Amino acid sequence: MKLKGITALSNGGITSPSGFKSSGICAGLKKSGKPDMALVWSETPAKTSAAFTSCLFAAAPVVYDREIIRKNKPVSAIIINSGNANACTGKKGMLNARSMACMTADLLGISPDAVLVSSTGRIGVQMPMDKISAGIGKAVSGLSMNGGHESAVAIMTTDTRPKEIAASIRISGKTVTIGGMAKGAGMIAPGMKTVPHATMLSYVTTDAAIDSRLLDNLLAEGTDLSFNRITVDGDMSTNDTLIVMANGTAGNRTIKSNSKEAGLFRNALLHVLQFLAKAIVLDGEGVTKFVTIKVLNAPSLKDANLCAKSIANSLLCKTAWFGGDPNWGRVMAAAGYSGASFNPDKASLYYEKTPVVRNGQDAGTPEKVLALIVQKKSFTITLDLKSGKHSTEVWTNDISYEYVKINADYHT
Amino acid sequence: MKLKGITALSNGGITSPSGFKSSGICAGLKKSGKPDMALVWSETPAKTSAAFTSCLFAAAPVVYDREIIRKNKPVSAIIINSGNANACTGKKGMLNARSMACMTADLLGISPDAVLVSSTGRIGVQMPMDKISAGIGKAVSGLSMNGGHESAVAIMTTDTRPKEIAASIRISGKTVTIGGMAKGAGMIAPGMKTVPHATMLSYVTTDAAIDSRLLDNLLAEGTDLSFNRITVDGDMSTNDTLIVMANGTAGNRTIKSNSKEAGLFRNALLHVLQFLAKAIVLDGEGVTKFVTIKVLNAPSLKDANLCAKSIANSLLCKTAWFGGDPNWGRVMAAAGYSGASFNPDKASLYYEKTPVVRNGQDAGTPEKVLALIVQKKSFTITLDLKSGKHSTEVWTNDISYEYVKINADYHT
Repeated sequence: MKLKGITALSNGGITSPSGFKSSGICAGLKKSGKPDMALVWSETPAKTSAAFTSCLFAAAPVVYDREIIRKNKPVSAIIINSGNANACTGKKGMLNARSMACMTADLLGISPDAVLVSSTGRIGVQMPMDKISAGIGKAVSGLSMNGGHESAVAIMTTDTRPKEIAASIRISGKTVTIGGMAKGAGMIAPGMKTVPHATMLSYVTTDAAIDSRLLDNLLAEGTDLSFNRITVDGDMSTNDTLIVMANGTAGNRTIKSNSKEAGLFRNALLHVLQFLAKAIVLDGEGVTKFVTIKVLNAPSLKDANLCAKSIANSLLCKTAWFGGDPNWGRVMAAAGYSGASFNPDKASLYYEKTPVVRNGQDAGTPEKVLALIVQKKSFTITLDLKSGKHSTEVWTNDISYEYVKINADYHT
Repeated sequence: MKLKGITALSNGGITSPSGFKSSGICAGLKKSGKPDMALVWSETPAKTSAAFTSCLFAAAPVVYDREIIRKNKPVSAIIINSGNANACTGKKGMLNARSMACMTADLLGISPDAVLVSSTGRIGVQMPMDKISAGIGKAVSGLSMNGGHESAVAIMTTDTRPKEIAASIRISGKTVTIGGMAKGAGMIAPGMKTVPHATMLSYVTTDAAIDSRLLDNLLAEGTDLSFNRITVDGDMSTNDTLIVMANGTAGNRTIKSNSKEAGLFRNALLHVLQFLAKAIVLDGEGVTKFVTIKVLNAPSLKDANLCAKSIANSLLCKTAWFGGDPNWGRVMAAAGYSGASFNPDKASLYYEKTPVVRNGQDAGTPEKVLALIVQKKSFTITLDLKSGKHSTEVWTNDISYEYVKINADYHT
């Protein structure tokens, strides 16, 4: 991650870019009484790109948002609730998602087509529309230029902490700011095409003036290099959503493709997306370790990804990491059964820079040395297949008692 | 499972068929000092079919056995050790596997080509050949017609109990017996082609006289309908092996394809294989529940299998089952992201015979009713896709704190 030219804003979030307001309120959807509804609002309608789950059982708000995004018109607001996913809820669920957009649009005095809807929480339960309706009222009246943090808190489910960031760059003499927030701690195994997977909700705001197609392309590339690189438990969600809104209020000359400015904006956007993606892994349910899996020199990108995801999702690898056990046999086995094609007699494995396997067999590094590496809070495992030219990187974590406890007990 | 014409033998195992001897001894490979070497022996060389892991990092004994099986000659013995997998051990590992066969052959006075080798345990460590050599001596001198149980104990790793069975049928006026034993509790996600996956070792003996090609075909079909239907943790092993030996000493008229006898033998073999496969799931590491996943009416068998395996391997489903939580949204999400193609608006879900989802949405059964079902020790989840004519069935289990504990701590 090149940080050249990018300035981090402390305590920044989605209201850091100019022209954005937000709120996070209690609508009463969560039994715990914690905040469960957020609203993001740009008075100036914003160019908007989005990516959604590829799960066949896409939730109603995802189906609704896809329709809106397809119209390719500016978007002004996103209404978000936690506590109920509005997934597997049939026609009534679709009507409810549409109602959420209409109610929000009415109160903001805009067209329903300018409102996106997101939901996360329990699947298969109809939305309590009386609570939703009252909540939307509170969310609209609570809108504030300092509401970024509140909304980052309100979209949480099993997350232990809000995830937010903002950074700025200089474009044609103007300060352009990008802000972002995300939620997600379980059901995390992205794979979005410009469309994510996992109950991962992520929202990025920017005041940049930017070409619409360029924004789409940068979002697609950014998704692949951030959220599509993470996996917590291999489970994709029905509700995954990533939305980027660009309202152009920074007053910069419009950023065009293939310009120096496009490169700078791309790097800043990647910085924000990768920060949020890694924050989700670090806040994964019951997580004690952050593990980077690099697969180098595979015959194809598909082979590299199969291998990396297979290792990252292996329960035996994840529990070994939890135990601080270097058990590299499990890593090799996961690569071997991944379906990726490569020559096993050439494969070499490294924990950080320490050789573990050389050409398919034990490199002779003492187990104690390896144990010191995998007992760290964060480490990198590199598998060099030496069978081609394609490489990838995936970010994951361990699986602990706590993960099992959280998911055996979760009921919203 | 039709049991017509099949007689279960109480306390039966691999030495129940005539002409087989076995032993299980302590070679000192396990730190615990528990039995860790087994020998299976048929004085009359046996027609032998086998299936092995499809993991690219196949262990040395698997590579060795494949060579032997390819020669298509009768086999007399299988030497098996637990405590060390002899996987990712390079050329030295291959030499050691070959040495195990040669030493066993020498002591039994047979050709090395008539000996198969199996290993299970820690990956990446060279075999302690001094202990192996002494152990083979003990195993040969310990051979006994009553040694089936000892050998079933000696092949265990994290298994909590030995898995054995025997059954007999009548063929052309003679009693034909089939015996079997298996080990496996973790790293279980078969998918063998006539070649299993998972540190699953399974051995079947029979005194039947049977056509060689018929035996191969029945093993291939039987593997698909038993071990390839189970998954404990989605992790395949480097060492999975299933071997069937038929020594013909029952004196029956040779069983030929497309005969009534072939059907009877097939059912008895399936009975033995399915019993052993289910026993592995039931003895899965930390298992508290046995779950049958049926997927009906998929567009293709591939779609049906993708769906069923995706549900069976979903960590979120497995932890919900552990918690006795009917959370059917997780089941639908796992089907939805499986990659299987089907119409989500037609899909219906049942817990036992109780409707849960009808045409993609909540069937309205009270959660308390569903909770009573998933809180049972054993239950069936049926997903009817109504999108085709292909169906499948998978057997799996939950994931508990205990699974994490066992695999975080496992070091042989």
